[in-house]
Amino acid sequence: MFKYLVLPAVLLGATSVHADEGQWQPHQLPQLASELRRIGIAIPASKLADLAKHPMSAIVSLGGCSASFVSDAGLVVTNHHCAYNAIQRNATPEHNYISKGFLAKTRAEELPGGPNTLVYVTDKVENVSARVHAALKPAMTGRQRYEAVESATKALIAECETDRMYRCSVPSFHRGLEYYRIRQMMIRDVRLVYAPSDKIGNYGGDIDNYEWPRHTGDYSFLRAYVGKDGRPADPSPDNVPYHSKDFLVVSAEGLKNGDPILLAGYPGRTSRYKLPTEIRYARDAAYPAKVAELQADLDVIAAATKGSEAYAVRYASVAKGINNVMKKTQGLLDGFARKDIAAIKDVQDGAFRGWYAAQAGQPPGLLAELDAAIAADIALSDEEFGWSVASNSDLLKSARTLYRLALEARKPDAERESGYQQRDLSFIQARLNRLEQSFVAQVDQARFVAGLRRYAALPKSMHVQGLDALLPAPDAVPALYGQTQLGETARRIGWIGQNDAAFAASDDAFVQLAVRLSAAALSLEERRKEVDGNLEKVIPRYMQAVIAWKQSQGKPVYPDANSTLRVTFGTVAPFSPRDGLSKGPFTTVQGIVEKHTGKEPFVAPQALLDAVKAKRYGQFIDPVLGTVPVNFLSSADTTGGNSGSAVMNRNGELVGLNFDSTYESITKDWFFDRDITRAIHMDIRYMLWVMKEVDHADNIVREMTVKYPRK
Amino acid sequence: MFKYLVLPAVLLGATSVHADEGQWQPHQLPQLASELRRIGIAIPASKLADLAKHPMSAIVSLGGCSASFVSDAGLVVTNHHCAYNAIQRNATPEHNYISKGFLAKTRAEELPGGPNTLVYVTDKVENVSARVHAALKPAMTGRQRYEAVESATKALIAECETDRMYRCSVPSFHRGLEYYRIRQMMIRDVRLVYAPSDKIGNYGGDIDNYEWPRHTGDYSFLRAYVGKDGRPADPSPDNVPYHSKDFLVVSAEGLKNGDPILLAGYPGRTSRYKLPTEIRYARDAAYPAKVAELQADLDVIAAATKGSEAYAVRYASVAKGINNVMKKTQGLLDGFARKDIAAIKDVQDGAFRGWYAAQAGQPPGLLAELDAAIAADIALSDEEFGWSVASNSDLLKSARTLYRLALEARKPDAERESGYQQRDLSFIQARLNRLEQSFVAQVDQARFVAGLRRYAALPKSMHVQGLDALLPAPDAVPALYGQTQLGETARRIGWIGQNDAAFAASDDAFVQLAVRLSAAALSLEERRKEVDGNLEKVIPRYMQAVIAWKQSQGKPVYPDANSTLRVTFGTVAPFSPRDGLSKGPFTTVQGIVEKHTGKEPFVAPQALLDAVKAKRYGQFIDPVLGTVPVNFLSSADTTGGNSGSAVMNRNGELVGLNFDSTYESITKDWFFDRDITRAIHMDIRYMLWVMKEVDHADNIVREMTVKYPRK
Repeated sequence: MFKYLVLPAVLLGATSVHADEGQWQPHQLPQLASELRRIGIAIPASKLADLAKHPMSAIVSLGGCSASFVSDAGLVVTNHHCAYNAIQRNATPEHNYISKGFLAKTRAEELPGGPNTLVYVTDKVENVSARVHAALKPAMTGRQRYEAVESATKALIAECETDRMYRCSVPSFHRGLEYYRIRQMMIRDVRLVYAPSDKIGNYGGDIDNYEWPRHTGDYSFLRAYVGKDGRPADPSPDNVPYHSKDFLVVSAEGLKNGDPILLAGYPGRTSRYKLPTEIRYARDAAYPAKVAELQADLDVIAAATKGSEAYAVRYASVAKGINNVMKKTQGLLDGFARKDIAAIKDVQDGAFRGWYAAQAGQPPGLLAELDAAIAADIALSDEEFGWSVASNSDLLKSARTLYRLALEARKPDAERESGYQQRDLSFIQARLNRLEQSFVAQVDQARFVAGLRRYAALPKSMHVQGLDALLPAPDAVPALYGQTQLGETARRIGWIGQNDAAFAASDDAFVQLAVRLSAAALSLEERRKEVDGNLEKVIPRYMQAVIAWKQSQGKPVYPDANSTLRVTFGTVAPFSPRDGLSKGPFTTVQGIVEKHTGKEPFVAPQALLDAVKAKRYGQFIDPVLGTVPVNFLSSADTTGGNSGSAVMNRNGELVGLNFDSTYESITKDWFFDRDITRAIHMDIRYMLWVMKEVDHADNIVREMTVKYPRK
Repeated sequence: MFKYLVLPAVLLGATSVHADEGQWQPHQLPQLASELRRIGIAIPASKLADLAKHPMSAIVSLGGCSASFVSDAGLVVTNHHCAYNAIQRNATPEHNYISKGFLAKTRAEELPGGPNTLVYVTDKVENVSARVHAALKPAMTGRQRYEAVESATKALIAECETDRMYRCSVPSFHRGLEYYRIRQMMIRDVRLVYAPSDKIGNYGGDIDNYEWPRHTGDYSFLRAYVGKDGRPADPSPDNVPYHSKDFLVVSAEGLKNGDPILLAGYPGRTSRYKLPTEIRYARDAAYPAKVAELQADLDVIAAATKGSEAYAVRYASVAKGINNVMKKTQGLLDGFARKDIAAIKDVQDGAFRGWYAAQAGQPPGLLAELDAAIAADIALSDEEFGWSVASNSDLLKSARTLYRLALEARKPDAERESGYQQRDLSFIQARLNRLEQSFVAQVDQARFVAGLRRYAALPKSMHVQGLDALLPAPDAVPALYGQTQLGETARRIGWIGQNDAAFAASDDAFVQLAVRLSAAALSLEERRKEVDGNLEKVIPRYMQAVIAWKQSQGKPVYPDANSTLRVTFGTVAPFSPRDGLSKGPFTTVQGIVEKHTGKEPFVAPQALLDAVKAKRYGQFIDPVLGTVPVNFLSSADTTGGNSGSAVMNRNGELVGLNFDSTYESITKDWFFDRDITRAIHMDIRYMLWVMKEVDHADNIVREMTVKYPRK
């Protein structure tokens, strides 16, 4: 059995750390107690560390987004863009809840959120590192190691998911240095309660995405429903609102520049501990290729949907998603160009290697092993990119998922590839179902053909081993679309549960293609497992050394984000993107009027414009600004997944919702630059003001506990 | 004789006024004493009003730019762009003072500024309104009125210009309501003492023109020389430095946000009292046409100079000038689009007309007469625009100037058109001489041809009465350039003093053209005199009423800028161009490094970059910024002509040089919007820091009296 060194004290009791940087596991917070006190947080760190206590027990995940309870009847507040799917699926031409907004005046009027709208309440986090590490042996190949971890974590999950009430996971921290088992109650009847018009919830649209000054009312309300027994249940009219024992008090008292904030949510993924080689690969190769690929795909979608309103609507959110990723990737490239992060990391890496060489008793060859593992990772990433370009078809992806499901079904459930187990079936089905909202055969065909042509033009290193001979010629693709029924939802769903022989015998062109490509795709996966296994063999030891080194400098150590519950804190703060310029920290309703052109995405509702004109600010006026604030900036450390996160004041009261970060801070996923990194939050006073002046959502306001400023 | 009402008290003793807005005549300052004290100015207003006392007696004009004495030996500090002509004329490929800068280590090394570099010291200002008004009779036509004013002011000038020592002028204030005779000592031996490299003096170039954040070291030093008798003299090695009894003390103590400033200089022209009709004409017709015309001309210059470095150099400053005017005009249009100034003026105009109608004893028909005069002005402006398009040739302009000079020479000097009198000859000659630096026949031809084609395409209302038949066909123009010698400087100058018959008999194609177009051009001028005479008949009465109306509201009244000495004051202040964004008030040397790309115009000298990198800030570090400031913003009221103006602290010490204003404030020429109007100044600490760290101009620093901050 492979033995790790005793974990350095820094993971248990850090020395001096700084606010702003750090996405902390709640149990780490007591180590940060003095810093929390220093910036003015009144809640004891020990209380913040306890997931069963207020306020952490009010924080939930929506799977990809964050949210929080704001009443004891399961009322959840999150971002408009996090509830978008629930809004969209209920919208019809007669009831366009996207453009008009939606407000349930009674609980009976609340609308089903659909199978993709789920609320996860984290209720237990256990360190299971020892049990996972026990399965590992030093002599294992990468692939063997990967399988051993998979098998150990699957067992840990299986013993945790005692019934459908819980969803468990065993994410690794510091890429295998630690494993925690996280148990979440999964509420699967979640309804739409209230969403403002997208003229508020998405004011500024894609143009303002990642930008400041920002004026977006990015909030919506959902409600968690459970069976009469209080346990999660399938959607049913018989269900009752979930009794959320804990919820956040909403404070309209507001913040001012310099005030401390706490932010809790589920950040997705960061790469703060990457090596200079990895940054250079991203900067010089992977990201430029990705941006070019996304742009090319967007161009194809635009051309293929041109002239058809219906097609354009189907692909609007697809294009929005691609645009968002592209803007983020371009932002990373711009950030790398602005600040030579690789050079900064070179210095750090050099210092670390120097320090490491001077330590006694360190295993020899660790750093050479690490460099080799990373080189293999980079080479394989090139092939994976090639694969993604060559398989740019939703029909092909659906066929591959279905066939893989059949292949995995031949094994006992516990041995199946994760993502294809019994517990994953409902998610697969929901995904296959949802495709019908964003699919047009002719557009898919254009994307597939163009992707194949781009793949053909890629350098040799990006071609997938054994794949090229199996791919259809681009000219042969249109014929395939005449010989498939996978475009029909019922037919697609109908393949779930069919055995692999049925796939092999099918004359559906896309099913045939999935079967034909399967071996090459599986080989790519196998090689990924070998590479990842090797990375996870060396990286935990490397990270252990890095942590010891950082500890020797009194530097904070927190694991990269991995979609688990984290707490970050900071202060309300402007920033200077350039000498002589200052941005933030607040925007105001006057800025909405300023941006209003009457042309999407800058169309503010008339009622809002009227209220601003009449200066009906009510209790939501900020004493410093003299008007109603809309958005504000803080120095908290966030990333994708933190959308909808509760922004709390020193007392843990809800004062804002996180929803974005500035373009200048996109590189924070790789390097946290305290001078320019700022998260963008919606001021809760703006939400309350819109609820009162524009949407008259008095019933929702009454349901919450709102603290108003003293006169 | 036409009688004006007794001037309302507001011109003598204003009630409550606000800082920022107002380009005040020095004699008005005692009326603003309490406001000056309120913002923290320590110099008594009565002292500021006295042109013979410090600090006003240290303020000088360069004719189009402002400047100030900074030693008792005639040392003058102004903007780099104001001394540009003097730098350029001394620069050679071996000694490129533009890119390398120039520093005279001794007085003997100082270089001649050339005939266009002059220093004007205002020494006497007299109200001569009564003498001008005495010449006017109510029954006069516009033309008669114009001539009567011309004749009266010429007489006033002639009796003032007792010798070549003085240059006198009688500008009108409030367009004829008042006239002041201004006597200036004109120093005509002015030498270049020190100019930094344009990498400092013009850092950011045209890209940063009108922009903020700004990082320009826009300063240079000249020295005024006089004859041994202390009187202005033609340039001569025998001349001696002018003994400037007064000069400004330079303070390196710096300013901080909110500090008061005083600014003295010679603002050129503003239009603050224009009517809504005039704004709409500018916004909807004149400015769009002007921008299109300038852009078209720039395109022609670019095409005609393409491929020839030599041609491009000749037209670099021409293009720069056109670009500057175009950017300003476009800035006005953008500003009009951003804020409906016409609508604001509608409200003011409506209120005024209402107030006026309610006053007893006002002459009837005044406002109708005003509206008619303005309508005539607008119609004629269209024709004048057409004329400028049709005559877009430097050769044609030179020929017209020369022929006009000959025509005027037939009259006694006192009766000649102003601009063509004996006293104007040296200026005309300098202009005709200077053309050789910015003229290439083939480029001039392209501009002329293209201008004629554009003229042909203009609407009928923009065609000049009687002109079209006289213009050459565009295709016939190239031949004209083969039949002229006006492109040669000596030939051009040779026409000065020739009589009109010589012109009529000449076979030079451009001389012939000037003779042929003369009648149409003169008719246009005559009609302008009639229109202006009518305007000046009605506007003074209108302004008198406006002043009384403004006085009734306690509002400040100052005359529009007219290139005469004015004082403005304000505070160091940032501004918000948009909600959630703040600009200024300071930039720092770090911003220079930030902008430095190594590509013009963002190439900072290596010595500067090194000094910043090494943090050699010396005594010029700002305690708040922690580094050396470069530029700063203030709320003072400036316009073109204020370039080089002394920016003084509460004690009248030189702390900065005015050199630009922000793009957002360009509309201030029409409407002063205190929220966004900001002038851009160079911090004198930056100048002193560059003199020490980069240029080692210790001799100049020693010559000045510099106050350093206490440690």
